Amino acid sequence: MAIMRRPTSTGAVWVGVDLGGTKLMCAVLDSKFRVLAEDRTSVPPAEGQQKGLKRMAELIENTLKQSGVRRGRLAAIGVGCPGPLDLQKGLIVHAPNLGWRKVPLKKFLEGVFGRPVVVSNDVDAGTFGEYVAGAAQGARTVLGIFPGTGIGGACIYEGRLIRGARQSCMEIGHVKVWPGGPLCGCGRRGCLEAVAGRLAIAAQAAAAAYRGDAPALLERAGTDISKIRSKALADAIRDGDCAVERIVRRAARHIGLAAANAINLLAPDVVVLGGGLVEAMPKLFLEEVEEEARDKVMPSFRDTFKVVAAKLGDRATIIGAAALAARAVQSGEVGHEAG
Amino acid sequence: MAIMRRPTSTGAVWVGVDLGGTKLMCAVLDSKFRVLAEDRTSVPPAEGQQKGLKRMAELIENTLKQSGVRRGRLAAIGVGCPGPLDLQKGLIVHAPNLGWRKVPLKKFLEGVFGRPVVVSNDVDAGTFGEYVAGAAQGARTVLGIFPGTGIGGACIYEGRLIRGARQSCMEIGHVKVWPGGPLCGCGRRGCLEAVAGRLAIAAQAAAAAYRGDAPALLERAGTDISKIRSKALADAIRDGDCAVERIVRRAARHIGLAAANAINLLAPDVVVLGGGLVEAMPKLFLEEVEEEARDKVMPSFRDTFKVVAAKLGDRATIIGAAALAARAVQSGEVGHEAG
Repeated sequence: MAIMRRPTSTGAVWVGVDLGGTKLMCAVLDSKFRVLAEDRTSVPPAEGQQKGLKRMAELIENTLKQSGVRRGRLAAIGVGCPGPLDLQKGLIVHAPNLGWRKVPLKKFLEGVFGRPVVVSNDVDAGTFGEYVAGAAQGARTVLGIFPGTGIGGACIYEGRLIRGARQSCMEIGHVKVWPGGPLCGCGRRGCLEAVAGRLAIAAQAAAAAYRGDAPALLERAGTDISKIRSKALADAIRDGDCAVERIVRRAARHIGLAAANAINLLAPDVVVLGGGLVEAMPKLFLEEVEEEARDKVMPSFRDTFKVVAAKLGDRATIIGAAALAARAVQSGEVGHEAG
Repeated sequence: MAIMRRPTSTGAVWVGVDLGGTKLMCAVLDSKFRVLAEDRTSVPPAEGQQKGLKRMAELIENTLKQSGVRRGRLAAIGVGCPGPLDLQKGLIVHAPNLGWRKVPLKKFLEGVFGRPVVVSNDVDAGTFGEYVAGAAQGARTVLGIFPGTGIGGACIYEGRLIRGARQSCMEIGHVKVWPGGPLCGCGRRGCLEAVAGRLAIAAQAAAAAYRGDAPALLERAGTDISKIRSKALADAIRDGDCAVERIVRRAARHIGLAAANAINLLAPDVVVLGGGLVEAMPKLFLEEVEEEARDKVMPSFRDTFKVVAAKLGDRATIIGAAALAARAVQSGEVGHEAG
């Protein structure tokens, strides 16, 4: 799968890590963020955070070995994590899927590897990855939207990620698209995520399957929403479940409306869509999001943006996390003193 | 009214101009953006754009004379204008209140004064004014919301105004707060401006007055919405028109909802409210916007921002326009070669 580069014998290399809900991916990248080696492992939530951190350190160690580069060339490590995070301290405040709380990721990895560690939000990193090496290269302002169980957003403005004081921002999943609408996990009503996230889609699709309106989905995934993943939805649509298609298209429309609101504010030239749902159904999502966004933005913004699908797949976060670490080291935001 | 500074005899001075719907204001500012002299005139739309431009040049000329500073010390001129503008060309594309179209403002003023001219959106300039010299000094991220006939927005992120490629952005007046709601001047439905702008408020207040539910307003302003200005609304509320108060509070709530959506995206530490409606009813707007924003943002953002009223009044745009011109000259974005 991976096109491995033969490592040059000199120059800084960067490690990028993607801490997902259950899997952990790592790559060693050269100065142009090309992959020299990559590896992955699982993170069973039941193991707890101490074993999880140990797994991460081992994975980085192994990937570095596979890359064959001298240890002295490792300049920094970037890790993309689901939020909420304390970016300054490099702390995972809470990773619900893993059950981790208050994990001092930066401190731990700097202790093990003696190099600066930069912790980023996974969607920030994914969007930055698409900006440095993927579908959003050369854009002035990038809006990233990554629909999945949550719907993450990110914005890069003139080469810099927009961030809150201590945490990530661009929480497009919590923009209200339906005032008084369904209850969201955040406790508010009508958030985009509650209307168009994977759980909202899966719940509606399960109901359609139960009613007998989605036979293909019923056969593949049943009516348990934990089993109705992006691929099952895509397969059911391909096999003719019109009800499922209508549900997913409606969700994508709501994402388009939230995109329009964000476009009215930020005037991106590129809107990049990624994440599990988009990877499984890129055409459907691109169509609906673009059509709705063009229909709902201010007329003067109508022709100022394009909507594209992410190109780097599950490498986007790794590459972006490494690139953000490189940026932080090169700008002097984090020093080499740890090494 | 104005606290005039005695001019120092050396150092750069800046001219700031605010081109409003009907009035034109100008000030000469020292290097710390303190007012050395200021003056104003009217811009009768019937006169047309050629005479309007001539009036602007005369006003600048007169204000410079009043300031007593040598002409050689004028470093640049900043002009804040209602949109839409072409910021790169310094062109007013269309100023509906004045009936002006395709006015090459930058070219004209550079021709007259031989100094760089920077044209900015008026709300961008007003928010930047509050950032350099008003209620938002020292903020990391400022969200400015200026409700009036239109509802303008602006964002300053780490000292820089967020802008589109050629035009202003942060069009918070066109964020959808009520999908399928009332028709907006932009042709879309449910925009904040169509629900909570001065015209929307005036239309509802006029109906209340007509029905006999707003006697104080009826006596002061009648039922002609062109006469129901911010001050008439404020006076009617003070005189006991509960129906008017409910209408304005509901509008402010919608502004709070749009603010919450923008806070979820941008994580400002300061939200500054300005413009005619807020100047007339600061307490009401601060209360409702803040309460609704805190209620609707993601819980993790609840305590990360404050909501404040603009402090500079009708000088905010002048000061901000001058400060943006100073910034552009000092950063080398626009040169002195014109001089």
